[in-house]
Amino acid sequence: MLNNIKIVLCNTSHNGNIGSAARAMKTMGILNLVLVNPVAIPDDHTMALACNAADVVREAKIVTTLEEALSDTVLAIGMTSRKREYTPHLTTPKGIIPEIFSSIASGDKTAIVFGSERFGLSIEELEKCNRLVTIPGNPEYFSLNLSQAVQIMCYEVYNKYNGSVAHLEQNTRLGSFADNQGILNQLELILSYANYKNKDPIRTRRRLQNILHKANLEREDVDLLRGMLKAIEVRVK
Amino acid sequence: MLNNIKIVLCNTSHNGNIGSAARAMKTMGILNLVLVNPVAIPDDHTMALACNAADVVREAKIVTTLEEALSDTVLAIGMTSRKREYTPHLTTPKGIIPEIFSSIASGDKTAIVFGSERFGLSIEELEKCNRLVTIPGNPEYFSLNLSQAVQIMCYEVYNKYNGSVAHLEQNTRLGSFADNQGILNQLELILSYANYKNKDPIRTRRRLQNILHKANLEREDVDLLRGMLKAIEVRVK
Repeated sequence: MLNNIKIVLCNTSHNGNIGSAARAMKTMGILNLVLVNPVAIPDDHTMALACNAADVVREAKIVTTLEEALSDTVLAIGMTSRKREYTPHLTTPKGIIPEIFSSIASGDKTAIVFGSERFGLSIEELEKCNRLVTIPGNPEYFSLNLSQAVQIMCYEVYNKYNGSVAHLEQNTRLGSFADNQGILNQLELILSYANYKNKDPIRTRRRLQNILHKANLEREDVDLLRGMLKAIEVRVK
Repeated sequence: MLNNIKIVLCNTSHNGNIGSAARAMKTMGILNLVLVNPVAIPDDHTMALACNAADVVREAKIVTTLEEALSDTVLAIGMTSRKREYTPHLTTPKGIIPEIFSSIASGDKTAIVFGSERFGLSIEELEKCNRLVTIPGNPEYFSLNLSQAVQIMCYEVYNKYNGSVAHLEQNTRLGSFADNQGILNQLELILSYANYKNKDPIRTRRRLQNILHKANLEREDVDLLRGMLKAIEVRVK
């Protein structure tokens, strides 16, 4: 489905930015790059910054006009950081994501279009886009690097596509209610052997209980703590 | 409130990344940078990449241990892109944002902690963090540049802080229901003068009506179209 999305860079001036943008795209599973009339032609510096996304640069299409880049697209999203006239309603990355997904899910092509580093998209380029997006940011210094803007859009797309990080999660089993009660009971027993003075045992137990709730103990944690408490219990008995 | 957040970079190897990270931070209104035992010391290249965020680099604190960087923080969020043992429950940027805001809103400090470019955070560094975050991404190529990861976290923070882009929006007044009806009536009149054959005028009007609904005409668009239709009407009458 992400194959229905392309990143279109217009009049890019810096070789390095093309490489960084390619890397940003590939980390988020977006592989189609189109360069419209680039000032900078991809070179060794581009490839160095692309790292293992050099394939995205090599397979990039280079065209001379934005019309060519957009000819098969239904959604053409122009990125801006300035106030513009005669444009579609302005929205944000988070605001446009549902429309991108309803479009690409039905097989339509979406282009996300970025202007040159210095000037952004021209009026002529913007008027070929049917959606307008800006990234919210510090009004006193809003000067996102091109590849950073590409990164943010691709990140939002990937998050909607697959926001799960389950593959990095531990397969841990958490302790049960009874495990927690066992720990508290054993601790209270030890404290009684130790003649610990407690004016409000109910309140104390409630607080300890709450610590255990927050700690989200794993089964292995429970076993470890019970073993320690057992050693102390034997000693203080 | 964003002043309660700091970005902590551990053992950063490349001068340029410190500058790019500073720029990424400032675009999102986050100005506190801490460098823990940096391999690269900020230099001219750093400043060049920082652009107008050179102040963030100049005011960065340099410390020798992560403990110093975290001493005043309540939330210490370790960033990882690998599976880790003995860590807090793993979540995502979007997942951690509510907790960051409930913490900084009550005046507590949050640190977002990034490891070295090559190895990420060490086990010793991670165990000092009480939260663990990973950015969802392409499982076949997940190699985000350091400053891109900083950008995404700062972007998510700023979005929650102020996701409004109203300052870039046009102050336009949209056309009313009556404006749209006026256009349709005038068009039907012209078509009748032109002897346009229409087998199903109700259905046709419904479709034209729907085009106008979607077009979200501004008052100025209405005036322009009415003027054009008037000229045609006079001519075909």
